[in-house]
Amino acid sequence: MELHDVLARIEPPDERLAEAARERHAQLTKPPGSLGRLEALGVQLAAIYGTVKPEVRGQGIAVFAADHGVTEAGISAYPKAVTQQMVANFLRGGAAVNALARTVGAELVVVDVGVDADEAAWAAFAGHPQFVARKVKRGTKNMLEHPAMSEGEVLAAIGVGIEVANALVAKGANLLAGGEMGIGNSTAAAALTAVFTKRPAREVTGRGTGLDEAGLAHKVRVVETALAKHRPDAAKPLKALAQVGGLELAALTGFYLAASAQRVPVLLDGFIATAAALVAVALAPAARGYLIASHLSAEPGHAVQLATLHLTPLLDLDMRLGEGTGALLAMPLVQGAARVLAEMATFAEAGVAEG
Amino acid sequence: MELHDVLARIEPPDERLAEAARERHAQLTKPPGSLGRLEALGVQLAAIYGTVKPEVRGQGIAVFAADHGVTEAGISAYPKAVTQQMVANFLRGGAAVNALARTVGAELVVVDVGVDADEAAWAAFAGHPQFVARKVKRGTKNMLEHPAMSEGEVLAAIGVGIEVANALVAKGANLLAGGEMGIGNSTAAAALTAVFTKRPAREVTGRGTGLDEAGLAHKVRVVETALAKHRPDAAKPLKALAQVGGLELAALTGFYLAASAQRVPVLLDGFIATAAALVAVALAPAARGYLIASHLSAEPGHAVQLATLHLTPLLDLDMRLGEGTGALLAMPLVQGAARVLAEMATFAEAGVAEG
Repeated sequence: MELHDVLARIEPPDERLAEAARERHAQLTKPPGSLGRLEALGVQLAAIYGTVKPEVRGQGIAVFAADHGVTEAGISAYPKAVTQQMVANFLRGGAAVNALARTVGAELVVVDVGVDADEAAWAAFAGHPQFVARKVKRGTKNMLEHPAMSEGEVLAAIGVGIEVANALVAKGANLLAGGEMGIGNSTAAAALTAVFTKRPAREVTGRGTGLDEAGLAHKVRVVETALAKHRPDAAKPLKALAQVGGLELAALTGFYLAASAQRVPVLLDGFIATAAALVAVALAPAARGYLIASHLSAEPGHAVQLATLHLTPLLDLDMRLGEGTGALLAMPLVQGAARVLAEMATFAEAGVAEG
Repeated sequence: MELHDVLARIEPPDERLAEAARERHAQLTKPPGSLGRLEALGVQLAAIYGTVKPEVRGQGIAVFAADHGVTEAGISAYPKAVTQQMVANFLRGGAAVNALARTVGAELVVVDVGVDADEAAWAAFAGHPQFVARKVKRGTKNMLEHPAMSEGEVLAAIGVGIEVANALVAKGANLLAGGEMGIGNSTAAAALTAVFTKRPAREVTGRGTGLDEAGLAHKVRVVETALAKHRPDAAKPLKALAQVGGLELAALTGFYLAASAQRVPVLLDGFIATAAALVAVALAPAARGYLIASHLSAEPGHAVQLATLHLTPLLDLDMRLGEGTGALLAMPLVQGAARVLAEMATFAEAGVAEG
């Protein structure tokens, strides 16, 4: 499915069902409002699924991996080769995202949308059931010298995200989460965040995987230089993605939009994943109603992004790993929000006196 | 097992294993510290279980139910009969605690340690596999006129909690949580909290299931009056429990202590459950190392309790239901903390370059 078809299908969640779910929550056997944010989350699920008895039937997470030409500028604490090495780690089941996907029972797929490695790199993983090989190109160009991608490459990467979301839904998932792996991608995410939140680079650029003070100051200058060179415009989201984005960021944008078009809630992970959500909502404001903020990252720009999106995170555990780890940890909360609304008895059904 | 045997067996978690777990976390394939509070939680589990590869093999939750004579003073938004009605709701599977226990896969038992109902009330639940009938007496006395319990009744209720914890562990649980149901029990919990945190009643007394401003002011005066009458002493925890406590609070105290003696981590729920933890730690300071604060309740005294215990809650979802609901929602976080520490590959194992 192409982007324009997806965009045409996105409608906001159904406010009538939200109201019906609020009424049902007031009748369930508990003091009114006593489940706090779990109640509001259940109301969102009712409006998305179109029923006051929402059910999470399957959970899927896709981790999109790609490389970044801007690593030439020395903006990461890790070498570029780690992207490829971590994809291999994901496929062997040894990363944090694997342990947490097993914990919550989510199906995990790993997508090469732009890792700077040739086909031989994945020879050991031929036929791996969790691997989706959809390389658009071997990493972006260095945004200090060129646009990171062409607009054709952006559309191709968005198409990969759409395809992956639709495939997970076709296999039975009705709760999705997106993760990412890409050395250098917190620089691209910071540039996009500056564009879509209209805040200066220094406010939305952080230490990524672990820069020191001098490294952070250099990274801020790199983001400022790239923004000054390309002058990306929030009113032209696809062009901005091409100028200072990344292949995995474009894929995540498509992933969120396809989930919204399918009326499936989708959990945002941390700073990088949420940068792609800013692009998605710029393309389709109604997609916002399908997004759930899973956690607040220790990366300082994340709170700025979430404020722009008017989303409040469920968890605040001082995490900053990415990969989708925060999104996975929030899945049981979403499950719980659905089940209390769907499964609890009302005061009348249970013969319990109301206060 | 009796209380003095349990107290004699409680030793702090093993700090050597905590240190070994910190070293292991630094070698796992992620930037150091990037899993935030999940790492500290894993370290605690390693120290409790005595292994750097902790495994949560089974999860159990016990909900202790009892009534309170102080309801005569009109301190709750709900009538006393709701305690019995909600126990029936638990046993039919229709309460929030049921939906959330199913969500996270925890075994749930419901314990009548002091509901003001005769045997006929449970006739419909004869042989119910989740029901534990251990009534010590039909509710406490009104603390405005008498001590709530005798010290013999306190010890009997503590013994029920010990028995239930040991039974869950014997059936395979190595992660426990305690919940409670008892109309009026936030008044008893406020009185105990004032005693053990040494703060004035007005700072630790809240709206419970939903009092208005006038109801709250009355409840504060009830707590103040009970404290002035009995003058409970934090240095005499069993006597304080007898004076202003509750049967389910005493049972929870025994439950936490037995978990600690068994080297099993135990999740605290909200304000009422945490009041019992204050008593447990007063009896055995080493038990503190086995406690995990699951969430921050909307009840204002909860933050005061957690500060006294030097515990930081994992979740903050504006919940105030009790029953163990907050504790259940934190179980997947504990599972995740164990699994990342036990299952992730090291940099050396995965062939990933370190930063």
